[in-house]
Amino acid sequence: MGSGALPTSKRTDGEVPAIVVGRLPIYLRALSLLEEEGKEVTSSQELGKRLGISSAQIRKDLSHFGEFGKQGTGYRISFLKERLTEILNLNKYWHVALVGFGNLGQAIAHYGGFAVKGFHIKAVFDNDPNKVDQEINDIVIQHNSEIIQTIREENIKIAIIAVPLYVAQEIAELLVQAGVKAILNYAPINLFVPDDVQVQNIDPVVHLQQMTYYL
Amino acid sequence: MGSGALPTSKRTDGEVPAIVVGRLPIYLRALSLLEEEGKEVTSSQELGKRLGISSAQIRKDLSHFGEFGKQGTGYRISFLKERLTEILNLNKYWHVALVGFGNLGQAIAHYGGFAVKGFHIKAVFDNDPNKVDQEINDIVIQHNSEIIQTIREENIKIAIIAVPLYVAQEIAELLVQAGVKAILNYAPINLFVPDDVQVQNIDPVVHLQQMTYYL
Repeated sequence: MGSGALPTSKRTDGEVPAIVVGRLPIYLRALSLLEEEGKEVTSSQELGKRLGISSAQIRKDLSHFGEFGKQGTGYRISFLKERLTEILNLNKYWHVALVGFGNLGQAIAHYGGFAVKGFHIKAVFDNDPNKVDQEINDIVIQHNSEIIQTIREENIKIAIIAVPLYVAQEIAELLVQAGVKAILNYAPINLFVPDDVQVQNIDPVVHLQQMTYYL
Repeated sequence: MGSGALPTSKRTDGEVPAIVVGRLPIYLRALSLLEEEGKEVTSSQELGKRLGISSAQIRKDLSHFGEFGKQGTGYRISFLKERLTEILNLNKYWHVALVGFGNLGQAIAHYGGFAVKGFHIKAVFDNDPNKVDQEINDIVIQHNSEIIQTIREENIKIAIIAVPLYVAQEIAELLVQAGVKAILNYAPINLFVPDDVQVQNIDPVVHLQQMTYYL
């Protein structure tokens, strides 16, 4: 399935399976690319071909959220994009905290893809005194000891963990204490968090190992 | 499900579902951590608790590959690790090519986690003349125009794409032409590749969007 992440998102919607929710951002990404190519209308066939997913699966996934197109006429891209954006709660700016400003944290901070999609890194933390007080994208890097106060003050709900394995759990606990409800974890470890906190893991080694099986 | 990657791995084993294969590296990672903690034996219950997966699911997943433990006595960690390593074809060193040496490519090249798990970055490519001929981990960075020759000569089967969106497809085609059979793609686009080439995608934005649904 190409899943390097674990099903650690403990909250489920009760109605829509998590695996369906997981595909919505991928549909949204494909729709944005189609729009950039100047298209106005698409079909479950076209989307399916682009994504390597059956058109029946796409129609079934979307049917969880209502009617999006008429039989035979396809989907109006702008409308479907708008609805998916709404369903995924992306019609607002999300503030994000980044913990860890090593090589990976720096790559994340410099990645333009977040802001374009409405995710703004508003606070950056590191435990290295040489990095604290440096600036990145007009943000002053703070010491890890400021995590709780800053995140509470700025009411940040999403955080990215880009610290070494052995401190990741400790950082996760600080983030949870600060009120974070969604963690994107780059440390190669499974975090223990309360049930009302989402975790998604990114571990490139897991992805590589999922492919070597077939080689 | 925590899947930021698409089910673009078109090859399936015929017997073991891809979603099961996808969990094996996660079991392996958990077993390695347990071993580092000094444990010698574990159970599907303990693994399940660590991973947020039901013990029944773990037993069912492992049953695809034979018997690993006796009822009531649990799994011998070293044995289960060894078997999973073998099943995933990880009992050898894999050579990996990295294309793109921007912020992300540099973070990837510096990440110690690959080598520890048997993935050795043996060739690095970039199209920036200022980066070509620089050294990283004793590897001389080559121009993208060398991709086909070098990868063929070194018989590299796995590549990581860390280039901008708009050149990713072109790079993927060069890699396929060079004989690469597994691509870890960091560019936020779905690559078109032949059916015998595996692709896994890592897009942090997709992971964030999978969580905002629940916020």
